Amino acid sequence: MEINKIKDPTFLKDLKTKDLVLLAKEIREFLILNISKTGGHLASNLGIVELTIMLHKEFNSPNDKFIFDVGHQAYVHKILTGRADKFNELRKFNGLSGFPDVKESVYDSFSTGHASTSISAVSGYLLDDDTNYAISIIGDGALAGGEAFEGLNYLGKLKTNKGIVILNDNNSSIVENAGGCHELVKKIRGRKISQGLKKFGYKVLPVFLIKFNRLISKFFKMLFNRKNYFEYMGFNYIGVVNGNDFTELRKAIKIAKSSKKPSIIHILTKNGKGYKYAEENRDGIYHGVSSFKIDEAIQNDCNKVLFSKIICDSILELKKKYDIKVIVPAMVNGSKMEDFQKNYPNDLIDVGITEEHAITMATSASLNNKKVFLPIYSTFLQRAYDQLLHDASRHNTNIVIGIDRAGLNPNDGETHQGIYDLAYLKTIPNVTIVAPSNKDEAYSLLDYAFNQKNLVCIRYAKTFFENVDSNFNLVPVNSWIKVKEGKDIVIISYGRILNNIKEFIRDYNITLVNAITINPIDEVTLTSLMENNKKIIVIEDVIDEGSLGNSIILFKDKLGKDIKIIKKNISNTYAPCGSFDDLDKLYKLDKDSIIEEIKNAH
Amino acid sequence: MEINKIKDPTFLKDLKTKDLVLLAKEIREFLILNISKTGGHLASNLGIVELTIMLHKEFNSPNDKFIFDVGHQAYVHKILTGRADKFNELRKFNGLSGFPDVKESVYDSFSTGHASTSISAVSGYLLDDDTNYAISIIGDGALAGGEAFEGLNYLGKLKTNKGIVILNDNNSSIVENAGGCHELVKKIRGRKISQGLKKFGYKVLPVFLIKFNRLISKFFKMLFNRKNYFEYMGFNYIGVVNGNDFTELRKAIKIAKSSKKPSIIHILTKNGKGYKYAEENRDGIYHGVSSFKIDEAIQNDCNKVLFSKIICDSILELKKKYDIKVIVPAMVNGSKMEDFQKNYPNDLIDVGITEEHAITMATSASLNNKKVFLPIYSTFLQRAYDQLLHDASRHNTNIVIGIDRAGLNPNDGETHQGIYDLAYLKTIPNVTIVAPSNKDEAYSLLDYAFNQKNLVCIRYAKTFFENVDSNFNLVPVNSWIKVKEGKDIVIISYGRILNNIKEFIRDYNITLVNAITINPIDEVTLTSLMENNKKIIVIEDVIDEGSLGNSIILFKDKLGKDIKIIKKNISNTYAPCGSFDDLDKLYKLDKDSIIEEIKNAH
Repeated sequence: MEINKIKDPTFLKDLKTKDLVLLAKEIREFLILNISKTGGHLASNLGIVELTIMLHKEFNSPNDKFIFDVGHQAYVHKILTGRADKFNELRKFNGLSGFPDVKESVYDSFSTGHASTSISAVSGYLLDDDTNYAISIIGDGALAGGEAFEGLNYLGKLKTNKGIVILNDNNSSIVENAGGCHELVKKIRGRKISQGLKKFGYKVLPVFLIKFNRLISKFFKMLFNRKNYFEYMGFNYIGVVNGNDFTELRKAIKIAKSSKKPSIIHILTKNGKGYKYAEENRDGIYHGVSSFKIDEAIQNDCNKVLFSKIICDSILELKKKYDIKVIVPAMVNGSKMEDFQKNYPNDLIDVGITEEHAITMATSASLNNKKVFLPIYSTFLQRAYDQLLHDASRHNTNIVIGIDRAGLNPNDGETHQGIYDLAYLKTIPNVTIVAPSNKDEAYSLLDYAFNQKNLVCIRYAKTFFENVDSNFNLVPVNSWIKVKEGKDIVIISYGRILNNIKEFIRDYNITLVNAITINPIDEVTLTSLMENNKKIIVIEDVIDEGSLGNSIILFKDKLGKDIKIIKKNISNTYAPCGSFDDLDKLYKLDKDSIIEEIKNAH
Repeated sequence: MEINKIKDPTFLKDLKTKDLVLLAKEIREFLILNISKTGGHLASNLGIVELTIMLHKEFNSPNDKFIFDVGHQAYVHKILTGRADKFNELRKFNGLSGFPDVKESVYDSFSTGHASTSISAVSGYLLDDDTNYAISIIGDGALAGGEAFEGLNYLGKLKTNKGIVILNDNNSSIVENAGGCHELVKKIRGRKISQGLKKFGYKVLPVFLIKFNRLISKFFKMLFNRKNYFEYMGFNYIGVVNGNDFTELRKAIKIAKSSKKPSIIHILTKNGKGYKYAEENRDGIYHGVSSFKIDEAIQNDCNKVLFSKIICDSILELKKKYDIKVIVPAMVNGSKMEDFQKNYPNDLIDVGITEEHAITMATSASLNNKKVFLPIYSTFLQRAYDQLLHDASRHNTNIVIGIDRAGLNPNDGETHQGIYDLAYLKTIPNVTIVAPSNKDEAYSLLDYAFNQKNLVCIRYAKTFFENVDSNFNLVPVNSWIKVKEGKDIVIISYGRILNNIKEFIRDYNITLVNAITINPIDEVTLTSLMENNKKIIVIEDVIDEGSLGNSIILFKDKLGKDIKIIKKNISNTYAPCGSFDDLDKLYKLDKDSIIEEIKNAH
């Protein structure tokens, strides 16, 4: 059939299994073809084609609610709910979101992006309402997150069968051994005998016999008091089910529907199924991809160096001086810490998707005199706000946090923007926030950071550098840096935006200042700038609340100066999906807007 | 012995069981006597006297680390580590903290206050270091918090016996049935047969035989695949142990020490043990107490009405108009929602200490057209920052959050101050923050809140009102309120501080404005105030970052006005323990300081 012509999932009701198998094949071809052009999340979506089809066949969305945890595996759902024709604009500005989005479709019941929220969201839909099913689709990685446990703990106590959790166990969670509930789920998965019996049942027996089989099993369970983790939590446990097999999936769903309490359907799926390079790869590079050639395995582009990699290399260099331990919440790959892991496997602790645990653990490690570096995406650090405020900074420990993907963040949309960290970190007493704009600054700021007695956060964007050399030079980072001297007008910026401005400001007679330490501000340099100039323009890709611009205005008011401060930043909002160029233009942080601002200022 | 003369816990090493029993009795008498005078956490400390003594006897603090989850049960630990003589200053300004505090004693390994952090803190102490034991003491309530699960998930995988979790199961968790892991722990506790066998073992057998017994049990376990929840998580499970019995405790600790992996010791203790009123009470009123008469049961003071109770009554009144659901994270009692629970038991959902779950659940409930009120202490809402930003406000749902204990908070110290919420809530797009100063404003603001389309937070302090009538009047709350008209000088304030100022400002010729909506600010009123006055003093008990004072300065800068704005608030810091009077004085928010400021301003 023509995938592009699917309007809604009702057509599935009449399809036979062999039609479904064909449909799954076509959807996979569609996904591989489209994602090869646009980039996007590949392996996770290829893995759950059969599941998504079967959910839409057996349930009635949008009345029944599907909530995709994290949400990077909702492409098939989008295809089946009439959005296939938008895949050429996947993750583009004004295009199709890479995540479920309630603003995009009535079939999207909850906008996800961060891990471990789906079971709580299911619980909310069932609050005083069991007219429809609410179904969480969650991976074994996201299950490690504390909120998922909180959700299970609540949902398991309900007296309704309308809450269903599909545990999508692909034995992967982005990268194998990335921590998380890996061990736990493996143990449950590994109970061979009962599993074998059940698998036999799902394949061969009709539903009424499976139910009878379960009655017998219940009897034996009572006898031997055998309960797995999920059964302890109050769930009817159904598994392990082959999640790439329509017949097994259908039977499992029927059993869940006929239960009297919430069910967990534990499915095994093959990540990347249908695309051999993705099936074979275990490094996670087929999780999120840029555009690629279908017939060739993806290669890393060796000339382009991500800022995260520069940070990793700097940490490796500093490891010669300090006994650094790296604690990383499930993002060895994303945070480009692979080389550190390779060289010091015992000094890198991947704790899985458990940001809260990571920060508290880093706190006591630091109290125990360990030097801890903790790289994390800006947006995911939000999850540990309380641990930063209540544990890390209150104990005044010297943890160095690498805030990756800080500022505007391309292609993932509003759930992954790093535009809030400056604001929420500044609400925490005694936090130093710095922002390097190149390798030597990064190295020097990290060296500085490990010699402080407080929490130091180092911010860097998802930017690439070309032809980075292998030297590490200590440069002065104790005060703001005058990149360029000029007259009357000062531009203050930092990080990625500063680098952009450097490029096109050469011909203007203005001063450009690199605010390398964003918090606390460099009051000495700032006072002098206020005394010797007429206007200060502060340009940054963070929200207005808590911005450096606001700090400068408040400092000016304290000094009683009357210099004009012009702020260019992002208003207090949720920033959409787009490239750096799209988003910079949207918030007037692009070359044209800034040059116009400079001209107006003169 | 003389409790006051205890210098450190080494004396315990030589004591026989009968001496320990006597010591426990004396400590209980000491606790009851002292807490009856000062107030403090009573029931939880009475419950773990034997445990704390045995920990200090069998381990070597401060080398071995004890981490008390939440921390309100560390009084016995403080007594045994030489701080008994400071109990007359318990929870007073510059006095003994009610929680463990690394600044107070080397024996306090981690400063706790918020729930569920202890297992992660234990993990950090064991990072690349198994020279000493690190021991979490955690209640069944705190175990429900997601971070505790994240901690268990990590710790259970370690290959060391140095990590021990003592699960203090008092079948209470502040109030019975307060949600949490109640069911889960009950199920484990309830496995009668093996429990009986084990209890027999602990009572009668020497350690080597218990170990043999456990070997046999292991064999049977393998045979029947019997694992409880904790064993699934990788722990050596020891229990159920009578936590008020020295012999059982000692044996359990010996088994944990001889294990090859981390252990969970599941103990049953009697909350409030040794004080009959506390033992018998199931309402949680002996959890945290004010001063009381030892020979009489505690009675509620009926003339004094806590602001939280006014909120509850307002919600009950509004329940006549709107079908309100209340979601509350373990604080029915603390948030004074008992009457709502009594009248609408099915409409109040106590989710246990799971703030993250609570906010995400409220989000989807609101998407499903439920009207949700969610009361929570300001300080505990920090735990759900990401869920507020990523879920609740991003979906633009109309959840009404009652921010209890907002602003300075007496007697609990830095872990319970509500001085950050304004700052972190303002970093979230599209949040309305309001602050009533009396009953009619509270009722009217709540009515207003339930008619909005966004997240509305209503802040109130831990203040009491006397002789509150039972009428509910709708008053205008759409703009700031001029409480008093005067000349040249304006004071802007809200909530508790506003009420204080009202009292002593009568004789001054100044304008007093009630900033009933803190965010967004009332720009119309503010513009007019800036045009017609010379100075504005903004007085509030929140940190400077994100304060209303800062909003007003930034607005002034935007308008280009040159009116002088004076801020009186709390600098970006951790506020210590003290009464309202102590803390107001410390931060110059007291009568004398404010009057001096007014005089200076003229």
